[in-house]
Amino acid sequence: MSTGDCLFCKIIAGEIPSGKVYEDDDCYAFNDISPQAPTHVLIVPRKHIDSLDKAAAEDAELLGRLMLAAAEIARDKGFAEDGYRVVVNTNGDGGQTVFHLHVHLLGGRPFVFPPG
Amino acid sequence: MSTGDCLFCKIIAGEIPSGKVYEDDDCYAFNDISPQAPTHVLIVPRKHIDSLDKAAAEDAELLGRLMLAAAEIARDKGFAEDGYRVVVNTNGDGGQTVFHLHVHLLGGRPFVFPPG
Repeated sequence: MSTGDCLFCKIIAGEIPSGKVYEDDDCYAFNDISPQAPTHVLIVPRKHIDSLDKAAAEDAELLGRLMLAAAEIARDKGFAEDGYRVVVNTNGDGGQTVFHLHVHLLGGRPFVFPPG
Repeated sequence: MSTGDCLFCKIIAGEIPSGKVYEDDDCYAFNDISPQAPTHVLIVPRKHIDSLDKAAAEDAELLGRLMLAAAEIARDKGFAEDGYRVVVNTNGDGGQTVFHLHVHLLGGRPFVFPPG
């Protein structure tokens, strides 16, 4: 289910250009337009889900595939062994700005704690 | 598969005390001993997996259940609507310090970007 005015649904559909990094039957990944690290990729489900808070029990495998895609991209980019951070922001306090669930993969530099 | 010297395996087994927040057949969640937010919970799989980089395709659903557990805990704690951040650190650059895959759930305050 895509929503007509969802930015990420339009990116997945190719209606808005993106720097594609990875795709499979369930997931699409592209470079963040405002990168916070040498590599900063967003991994999104093709299925529109507003946020992690709106994910249902039936979405478990899909959520896991997003995480595994992040790990695979990190290996492809060559920084898996050095390390990386995966982040999901939910609603206002989390800093979510696009309401299509997305996983941030950040790599290529050390990350400090707390994570924001 | 637990490993004898894994801190989180010992916590799951009850050999080391923890502030339990949630548990189900696949996941165990407890308060971080060095909280970085009013709520800072670690959600871990009962199955020992060193890191996200070591997760296999067959772990997809389990990974998703960890994420869904984070969302459920956020609702239980009452900050889901305000928002929260979920973080997985992998290897050195990511800031991973315990090599049993864990999901950080942080809530109760706003989180800035970049996430560390």
